[in-house]
Amino acid sequence: MDLKYELKKRADIFNIELEEYLKNGKPKSLYDAAKYLPLASGKRLRPCVSMLSCDAVGGNLKQVMPFAVALELIHNFTLVHDDIMDKSHLRRNMPTVHIKFGISTAIIAGDLLFAKAFEVMHDISDDSSVFKRVDFGLINCVREICEGQQLDMVFEKKHGVSEKEYLDMIRRKTAMLFKFSAEGGAILGGGTKEEINALCEYGESLGLAFQIQDDYLDMSSDEGTLGKDIGNDIRNGKKTLIAVHALSNAVGDDKKILEKIFGNREASEQEVKKIYDLFKEMKSIEYVKNAALRYSIKAKKALDILDDSDAKRILIGLADYSITREK
Amino acid sequence: MDLKYELKKRADIFNIELEEYLKNGKPKSLYDAAKYLPLASGKRLRPCVSMLSCDAVGGNLKQVMPFAVALELIHNFTLVHDDIMDKSHLRRNMPTVHIKFGISTAIIAGDLLFAKAFEVMHDISDDSSVFKRVDFGLINCVREICEGQQLDMVFEKKHGVSEKEYLDMIRRKTAMLFKFSAEGGAILGGGTKEEINALCEYGESLGLAFQIQDDYLDMSSDEGTLGKDIGNDIRNGKKTLIAVHALSNAVGDDKKILEKIFGNREASEQEVKKIYDLFKEMKSIEYVKNAALRYSIKAKKALDILDDSDAKRILIGLADYSITREK
Repeated sequence: MDLKYELKKRADIFNIELEEYLKNGKPKSLYDAAKYLPLASGKRLRPCVSMLSCDAVGGNLKQVMPFAVALELIHNFTLVHDDIMDKSHLRRNMPTVHIKFGISTAIIAGDLLFAKAFEVMHDISDDSSVFKRVDFGLINCVREICEGQQLDMVFEKKHGVSEKEYLDMIRRKTAMLFKFSAEGGAILGGGTKEEINALCEYGESLGLAFQIQDDYLDMSSDEGTLGKDIGNDIRNGKKTLIAVHALSNAVGDDKKILEKIFGNREASEQEVKKIYDLFKEMKSIEYVKNAALRYSIKAKKALDILDDSDAKRILIGLADYSITREK
Repeated sequence: MDLKYELKKRADIFNIELEEYLKNGKPKSLYDAAKYLPLASGKRLRPCVSMLSCDAVGGNLKQVMPFAVALELIHNFTLVHDDIMDKSHLRRNMPTVHIKFGISTAIIAGDLLFAKAFEVMHDISDDSSVFKRVDFGLINCVREICEGQQLDMVFEKKHGVSEKEYLDMIRRKTAMLFKFSAEGGAILGGGTKEEINALCEYGESLGLAFQIQDDYLDMSSDEGTLGKDIGNDIRNGKKTLIAVHALSNAVGDDKKILEKIFGNREASEQEVKKIYDLFKEMKSIEYVKNAALRYSIKAKKALDILDDSDAKRILIGLADYSITREK
């Protein structure tokens, strides 16, 4: 099975639907800003997970498409607002929405994508109880994403974040939407309770594997040169799982060095390098790579109860990809 | 009938429900920011309109309460984000959310209020088709509010905004939510098609009367001294109905003066005063007062087809109040 080909095939079907939902709104300046990020490519992972989950329980793709579109709109709404908060200038190698269109328009564009997502949900043709269940689940996701995003900010300034707290944060911020992509897809596909639960667990573990792998990649992407992002994360005291592991396990001098340098905005290049070396010595980077692997295995295991199908094989491939990808 | 007393009675019932929906969320810093504005008093006009509309068609208050809460949450979400965009420091005589909690938390708090509104909607106990109709109507309102907010920004820099364009803008930005407060209240109260249409028209006209009266009050609040806000609006080229009327009707020297000074951030006190005097000479201020009056009358007229009731009398009182209030 060629995973890339299988995902692209679904993303292509999805993109046609997405464009349809975002075209021709007025005022143009607002819709240009709102369309800019969602229509600028992207892997469409959440829509693909929902489509594959629907397929894996024997459902009809048509049933799931409005939900797939809503997932991508929600994901993009959170990216637009996150980039404002993080003062990010680039995403997917393009200027971020607020850099291109201004902060005010970017705030409204994010709000509009949020509204559009729940407008699109009303195109679900299922009977009302299914609609209500999926609509309520999705609005709950948005609430949890907000809570996770705030926790992420709170943790930057908090001493002694535990691994449990960290996992709770990324579960809300990232894994929830993956989880509900799979769960909602299975519900709309008419899956049994057992199938829905299995895909729910798959989605959550997949989301955690993705996020933890991101933490790993951020810290290992340019080992030799120790790039700007690594330095910024260390200086800002960003609580990735690597940092959480090191901070929880360091003792003696290591602990003192970490407490002095990690989160110190004035830290020198040399000090940043010291922290990075400490992460390696303490095997925090290795620990995180293994954690991602564990979640990837857990995701695949959850699918055991499903009948064999192409969709199931692609979902398994996606769980492997979540930890083998290099960006 | 004592309008103030009747509204307060309903606002008190409403506030108990609202507080219930906003308590005890985590992380606390996010929920503190999200609760701050909605729980800091406010007249609860939109919830009251929905409760009264439900009542006026013989409905049960219980049916409308989740919708009433959602309306207030949506209203507050838009205020939180608007204040960030407008760089406002004060609202209801308190620091705005982003001044008190920081911009990032304020953006998320606004998003959370938006999410909470649509979470609350799921507590509507009506049958699913009624729920779907009201939920879809409300999400449409949010889309229109976003569009109206963007138009408002676009108009600040646009030459030659017509009265029609201005009315379209405030219809979306302000009147839509009033309109749907009344319409949704009537739907949830089990009103007939005729009653729902009547309240829909009432709500829209009421919203327009409110917004236009705001334009009037902003320009007449401190005639003698010509306060800071009036000066800012003139220097920023804010397209209130007063400005739109003057800009559309001025000729000769008046037109030249307006084009030179209105929207010029460097305008002197004396120049600002000149514009203000021109607004008076051209009877633009009077024109706008009359426009608000017309919409107030239209709102009341729309209620003719409803049976007499306390609720109807209070709605009529509210339409009178919309143009007699002084703040």
